[in-house]
Amino acid sequence: MKFVIQRDNLVQSVGDVMKAVTSRTTIPILTGIKITANDEGVTLTGSDSDISIESFIPKEEEGNEIVEVFETGGIVLQAKFFSEIVKKLPMDTVEIEVQNHLQTVIRSGKAEFNLNGLDPEEYPHLPQIEEGNAFKVPTDLLKTMVRQTVFAVSTSETRPILTGVNWKVENGELSCIATDSHRLAMRKAPLENDNGNEYNIVIPGKSLTELSKILDDNSEPVEIVITDNQVLFKAKHLLFFSRLLEGNYPDTSRLIPNESKTELVLATKEFLQAIDRASLLAREGRNNVVKLSTVENGVIEISSNTPEIGKVIEQVQSQSNEGEELKISFSAKYMMDALKALEGTEIHIDFTGAMRPFVIKPLHDDSILQLILPVRTY
Amino acid sequence: MKFVIQRDNLVQSVGDVMKAVTSRTTIPILTGIKITANDEGVTLTGSDSDISIESFIPKEEEGNEIVEVFETGGIVLQAKFFSEIVKKLPMDTVEIEVQNHLQTVIRSGKAEFNLNGLDPEEYPHLPQIEEGNAFKVPTDLLKTMVRQTVFAVSTSETRPILTGVNWKVENGELSCIATDSHRLAMRKAPLENDNGNEYNIVIPGKSLTELSKILDDNSEPVEIVITDNQVLFKAKHLLFFSRLLEGNYPDTSRLIPNESKTELVLATKEFLQAIDRASLLAREGRNNVVKLSTVENGVIEISSNTPEIGKVIEQVQSQSNEGEELKISFSAKYMMDALKALEGTEIHIDFTGAMRPFVIKPLHDDSILQLILPVRTY
Repeated sequence: MKFVIQRDNLVQSVGDVMKAVTSRTTIPILTGIKITANDEGVTLTGSDSDISIESFIPKEEEGNEIVEVFETGGIVLQAKFFSEIVKKLPMDTVEIEVQNHLQTVIRSGKAEFNLNGLDPEEYPHLPQIEEGNAFKVPTDLLKTMVRQTVFAVSTSETRPILTGVNWKVENGELSCIATDSHRLAMRKAPLENDNGNEYNIVIPGKSLTELSKILDDNSEPVEIVITDNQVLFKAKHLLFFSRLLEGNYPDTSRLIPNESKTELVLATKEFLQAIDRASLLAREGRNNVVKLSTVENGVIEISSNTPEIGKVIEQVQSQSNEGEELKISFSAKYMMDALKALEGTEIHIDFTGAMRPFVIKPLHDDSILQLILPVRTY
Repeated sequence: MKFVIQRDNLVQSVGDVMKAVTSRTTIPILTGIKITANDEGVTLTGSDSDISIESFIPKEEEGNEIVEVFETGGIVLQAKFFSEIVKKLPMDTVEIEVQNHLQTVIRSGKAEFNLNGLDPEEYPHLPQIEEGNAFKVPTDLLKTMVRQTVFAVSTSETRPILTGVNWKVENGELSCIATDSHRLAMRKAPLENDNGNEYNIVIPGKSLTELSKILDDNSEPVEIVITDNQVLFKAKHLLFFSRLLEGNYPDTSRLIPNESKTELVLATKEFLQAIDRASLLAREGRNNVVKLSTVENGVIEISSNTPEIGKVIEQVQSQSNEGEELKISFSAKYMMDALKALEGTEIHIDFTGAMRPFVIKPLHDDSILQLILPVRTY
């Protein structure tokens, strides 16, 4: 294998596939990046066996030559060293050549690196996925849907299925649901090119977080292909494979209350900042818990109290406050996570009593919902 | 005590004194910030008993009222909570009032914090320093001198004196020297207002690092007052006290060779980047060691080799190369630290053989010097 490549394109692609590479793997060859060159261009692959990422660098793009391939072939190079080397090369172009015994020379200007490579034949094959049944989601919408749900997955392995996000495609709509059993986040969006297929899968939260980091912010469609145990996201020059979590995701629909006894409308930012302040003195005590009480004339009071340090109390004017009086305690962290995930300047909170889960939504928008279980403090 | 203060000024001052506060102290009251208000303004103090910082906020500055004091007095508040609270207050002004039993109320807009305070009488007194014998150094020069030397202090407590920087005032000149016994950094500067006093002290490296962070980038003079066991840096509205290290600093003058057998002149940036690249494959092996060899026609070769990973070799064209041929090995990290500390686009290196310390200076500038001991690799 021998090719000359624009360094900036190589650095970008290496950065992308590195997101899948971990040094904590039991399969030594996965600490490497696979590089293959053919007549179309150069392909890089990184994998930790849960996530696999393939980035393609075409021979030319928009009339500019990016790669010149002199000899096709492949090699696997230690990811940690290769990624640092390409970042620090002195010139705009890089020559990469595999010599005898997998010895690989990386040349740029007067700098010459010799790296011991590994046999690309020994690199695991990526899953073969039939591409017939793809559906498409615009990149920016996909990233938003991930951001609005993935924070709510469980970080505990007690119930592994809860470390993933439940994706359902049904009636031309994609819904994403995550819960750690203390709070739940849900976001729905209609599919523009519904192909009539129905899916119900659970994607590891970590995979979605890494996917979000790699995708550019644009409105180009990402093709999504789902099989029994894999999901493939296809963006421009990029393939992102993730394994799926096995098992049945709990039915969360019955958790979401249909009625409400106290309804609040609040300015999102003002409410978020008041919660943030109250949490400062709640951090040490009972698991970061703050209290919300309705007062009168639409005023609510946010407070917390850690006797050994001090207490804080703040009044917030709601835009509307209907129904029963209420005193309720909840995790400030869960509330802040939920408020940050919502879009819109005003939110609507539906309470059904101090011991029941409550629902936060943007005003006049049913596509997203955040649910939080209160904390018993009396 | 009761005063109303501009939040931005309070945040800035709290940030400054926080640099001295540590949660790992055996004296509980030092986890707090002392706040005192008198007719001139408000003073904040933080200390870890090695470093003490006092920041003064005047009643008014440039015609703008910053503090209005309603009642003089003092309090000590938990630094960790107080500093987070002031950053997150909702309005531009803050009211702080000490009530009964050291209970302190912090009010801003509709947010009200109650913190349990501590008795300010129990806060340790800062050192009393006679201000007769100050000398002055412009702030930006002081920060540069610290930056160019402090990185070379020892991080090991085997010889505690080497964890400090040796400051000497002699013949109207300030010299700063740091060494960890593998490398040495020295910077000199003439004093503009020499008062004839001579000093020879050792200031903890950590103190100088924190001092640098607090000082603004300007050319205002910092007054420096030295006593038997303390040094005081006085900047505008800021007092920075540090204890001195006890013991005699080794005489480093005999370490610096007077002659040279091989002399190189190199472009600083090009040389630094070549060392940086060579260090990529040196990191795993023998303590980050790279090799420098003179070739011919003024070319030098930078290389490193870690058999299990690979090797790197790079040629650099020197601007001048006089004297004997040379092959020498040294720590890439020490070389990069030294090159980053030097100012100027070209450097001069004087070698006196592969086993002897060598000296790096900017071309045509004797006010700064970096010395590195080579590593034996043959």
